Amino acid sequence: MNDRFLRACRRRPVDVTPVWFMRQAGRSLPEYRALRERYGMFEIMASAELTAEVTLQPVRRLGVDAAILFSDIVLPLAAIGVDVEIKPGVGPVFADPFRTADDLERLRPLDPTDMAAVTDAIKILTAELPVPLIGFAGAPFTVASYFVEGGPSRDYAKTKALMRSEPTLWAALLDRLADIAIAWLRAQVDAGASAVQLFDSWAGALSAEDYRGRVMPASARIFAGVADLGVPRIHFGVGTGELLADMGAAGADVVGVDWRIPLDEARRRVGGAYALQGNLDPALCTAPWNVVEAAAADVLERAAGRPGHVFNLGHGVLPETSPDTLQRLVEFVHEHG
Amino acid sequence: MNDRFLRACRRRPVDVTPVWFMRQAGRSLPEYRALRERYGMFEIMASAELTAEVTLQPVRRLGVDAAILFSDIVLPLAAIGVDVEIKPGVGPVFADPFRTADDLERLRPLDPTDMAAVTDAIKILTAELPVPLIGFAGAPFTVASYFVEGGPSRDYAKTKALMRSEPTLWAALLDRLADIAIAWLRAQVDAGASAVQLFDSWAGALSAEDYRGRVMPASARIFAGVADLGVPRIHFGVGTGELLADMGAAGADVVGVDWRIPLDEARRRVGGAYALQGNLDPALCTAPWNVVEAAAADVLERAAGRPGHVFNLGHGVLPETSPDTLQRLVEFVHEHG
Repeated sequence: MNDRFLRACRRRPVDVTPVWFMRQAGRSLPEYRALRERYGMFEIMASAELTAEVTLQPVRRLGVDAAILFSDIVLPLAAIGVDVEIKPGVGPVFADPFRTADDLERLRPLDPTDMAAVTDAIKILTAELPVPLIGFAGAPFTVASYFVEGGPSRDYAKTKALMRSEPTLWAALLDRLADIAIAWLRAQVDAGASAVQLFDSWAGALSAEDYRGRVMPASARIFAGVADLGVPRIHFGVGTGELLADMGAAGADVVGVDWRIPLDEARRRVGGAYALQGNLDPALCTAPWNVVEAAAADVLERAAGRPGHVFNLGHGVLPETSPDTLQRLVEFVHEHG
Repeated sequence: MNDRFLRACRRRPVDVTPVWFMRQAGRSLPEYRALRERYGMFEIMASAELTAEVTLQPVRRLGVDAAILFSDIVLPLAAIGVDVEIKPGVGPVFADPFRTADDLERLRPLDPTDMAAVTDAIKILTAELPVPLIGFAGAPFTVASYFVEGGPSRDYAKTKALMRSEPTLWAALLDRLADIAIAWLRAQVDAGASAVQLFDSWAGALSAEDYRGRVMPASARIFAGVADLGVPRIHFGVGTGELLADMGAAGADVVGVDWRIPLDEARRRVGGAYALQGNLDPALCTAPWNVVEAAAADVLERAAGRPGHVFNLGHGVLPETSPDTLQRLVEFVHEHG
């Protein structure tokens, strides 16, 4: 087993910098697109074999140092019976968005039997994978934003209005989502995942004050709720330059950084007690190779000199990215990192 | 003439804090919606009378301390013959996006005769308005992002790839857009606008290094190109916490701040030589009044103690905002600011 990813998460010395890509499984790979012509998103996620296959595809093709389970942050809600679909080109869409305290009842606890396909997929994967598998969950704020807005949003108006106008209901919503995330992550680790990542992708839409007072406690509860499992915990969001220290303090071992803040500055902000993951701008991966190479070299240079760097993009792989670019990028990081 | 807006821009003492709202003219007002049932966006902008009417609507209803010309950042491109439409619910869409050096020829200099409707509207407005009129333009990066992507974007992949892979062409594109913005702003001030705002709405998608090296020079040229006119120059973008000092140094008198950074922290970042504009989260204006009031009080408190604050939202008014909330907000700022 190639364990340099886990070693870097724990800030231990590595032979070369480990690298994986958020959304490495999915839309940028032709073998995934071919599969999607036959199966819907939820069909794939309901099948242990298909989930395992899609999770394996980028490991085979790209030579990355970690796999991430192919899934979606709203899958646990679907698993407990909330009516949600994933619309191609749009994202998660809820037929009946969260509005009042009555809606809390729709968020029943997640049961191990709700997750059979996922845990079966992980069992297949841990037998086949030459690299560690990352399990993941959506952080309460980000999941709540989809559930309250009814789908993706640019401004999170309903979410923020609820957060400020009904603080008790908001806290109850985040608490239920935290419980679901804890059960979801524990099931993944119990089945064989070697690390977990909490995606608070849209936390960067919040002021630091809102984040600290109204969002971070529920995320911190999730990290505490999986602490005894002993796996590295990664905490990721976009546009979170102002929140990096808090995102570490929430209970992470690794803080994800998008491309807006250079890694040396990120390290200054979070302090020495955390590993960092990032932070090449995924937009640049659509440019010619010389651009990608120069940008990747800059990332490696700013991370150099101390252990605890997992190379990644600053956000997910864009669909229009060439798999060849990703493959060269893995080689480049392994050569120069 | 109520001049407290201009005084605050110049960091002079004011009787009460001036307030206006980005997108105060438009989708949140029923009188605007009624007008839009009869006229398209470009029809309004092509008519001096309709442009003046829409610009006046929020001044009449809300009692704000400044008007902003009803227009769009892509109007100058339409005026020189670039094929662009403004799709409802989407934004500017270009039939034939910018791709190569040949496309530079489509960006001919802006001529005063291209702007007759706008300058005529401003003449009507300056005769009727009890408050100063703000003219505006889109900053080169933000306009380029629409032109290169072909429309609104989440990731600016084509724009960033062009910026990094063809630096000479990128600089030439931004230079042409800067020339157009200078001509556009000068025409507005010559016709009677008392201040100008440069919208670099999407600059926050850039790292500080990209902003400084590849974007800021063109914006700085615009500010320099209108410096002799002697009107306050406002510089605004979203998610620009890392760029605030640069956005001031580009040549602004007033730096716009979104809601992610509190104004006292923003002041620390930009230094004492600039006025600040902002920074209530527009999402919160859709919440019940007690939430809006508490958030507005916090903005005023963090700005208190020194001159140079123009109260505004951190981004444009959301369409679902109640005009009553905006009206109460103006009263609140005038009472407590």
